[in-house]
Amino acid sequence: MSTIAENSRKTTLLPAEPKSFDGNQSPTVRLYPVTNYTFGTKEPQPEEDGSVQARLQRLQEQYEASGMRRTCEAILLCHEHSHPYILMLQIANTFFKLPGDYIQPEDEEIEGFTKRLNEKLAPEAESEHAQDPINYEWNIGECLSQWWRPNFETFMYPFIPPHITRPKECKKIYLVNLPNKKVLSVPKNMKLLAVPLFELYDNSNRYGGQLAAIPQYLSRFNFEFV
Amino acid sequence: MSTIAENSRKTTLLPAEPKSFDGNQSPTVRLYPVTNYTFGTKEPQPEEDGSVQARLQRLQEQYEASGMRRTCEAILLCHEHSHPYILMLQIANTFFKLPGDYIQPEDEEIEGFTKRLNEKLAPEAESEHAQDPINYEWNIGECLSQWWRPNFETFMYPFIPPHITRPKECKKIYLVNLPNKKVLSVPKNMKLLAVPLFELYDNSNRYGGQLAAIPQYLSRFNFEFV
Ligand SMILES: [Zn+2]
Ligand SMILES: [Zn+2]
Ligand SMILES: [Zn+2]
Ligand SMILES: [Zn+2]
Repeated sequence: MSTIAENSRKTTLLPAEPKSFDGNQSPTVRLYPVTNYTFGTKEPQPEEDGSVQARLQRLQEQYEASGMRRTCEAILLCHEHSHPYILMLQIANTFFKLPGDYIQPEDEEIEGFTKRLNEKLAPEAESEHAQDPINYEWNIGECLSQWWRPNFETFMYPFIPPHITRPKECKKIYLVNLPNKKVLSVPKNMKLLAVPLFELYDNSNRYGGQLAAIPQYLSRFNFEFV
Repeated sequence: MSTIAENSRKTTLLPAEPKSFDGNQSPTVRLYPVTNYTFGTKEPQPEEDGSVQARLQRLQEQYEASGMRRTCEAILLCHEHSHPYILMLQIANTFFKLPGDYIQPEDEEIEGFTKRLNEKLAPEAESEHAQDPINYEWNIGECLSQWWRPNFETFMYPFIPPHITRPKECKKIYLVNLPNKKVLSVPKNMKLLAVPLFELYDNSNRYGGQLAAIPQYLSRFNFEFV
């Protein structure tokens, strides 16, 4: 398997070609250069809760009213130099998160997730870019990972821990394929950063366990860099 | 979402049911209890190489003759108390590995992988269990993860690192669904251990990064415990 095109090879000393190695493989994912995307800004969106305590308190109140919280987040991919990059929000210059949020209890999953992605990243109604429907469309693909919160506490696990029968939250991480071009409008209190897989890998100190595992979630896909 | 059957509920104080949360979900995987499987032994299978240096040397020789090495490993799942367990080989009471090996250069991927799984885990021809064809069949499912070795060195990554055009090895980790019953025969210099997801999770010190990430590879599946 060579990953360079035949016409850009610099050597004629080619290694032997092994037999094919694509059994039961996930579909190939097409990635466009990060420069294909236009990044705008919009009104700030402050955090809903002022502290971790307040966040867990609200989770508990919502659980009592509506049951397990359903949260969806998007992995948005592009490339630079034929290496995959993830578009990630950085909040207040400190912590990182994927675009997404909990789904409102009355919403269906995919419809509610689309709403949340538009809240975070679509242009405001008065923007010149509001005319183009592609800026409000999200191609929500495969679920790549699920994380469960067993209690009203900060810990989440990529499985339901033994003897837990009523998880308080389930977070699903989706592959969301970006189109060729799109305008992404970012709330002014956040930044949207393109972070390469090699930066995330083995770096849970900086990104936390859920984000540092993104290279592992994606490793079953092959990429096509256009 | 509740994970206990209605007739074993101990409370009548049920939380609210959220709307469905199964969009774009991977298929449900059925797991049988570990007690459904019979574990036998067979002749020892010593390591092919006596040292890391010898192993990398052989990799280089094989690469020159046949190109990138193709390696396949199996995640074999069962359950105990409705929690998923992975069947893993432990060699010489120290390191752990998934059943599998590199595919012989002349073999097709799935056929070659099946051969390797039988070498490791099928009964010997003279065994009483050799009569049952199920003991030689492997239901090779989805590819869950791929790891690449960029150089003739020990490091592997769950992506092709930037500027690497000719990886020296690609390892694919497959979900291999176990049937209801099966006899597994383990070489005498190894043990086959059932390791729970919660033991692997966040435990790369003991299991290494590839095995400690198994809970993450599997997190997109829901399980049915029968
Ligand atoms: Zn503009
Ligand atoms: Zn570069
Ligand atoms: Zn027997
Ligand atoms: Zn138990």
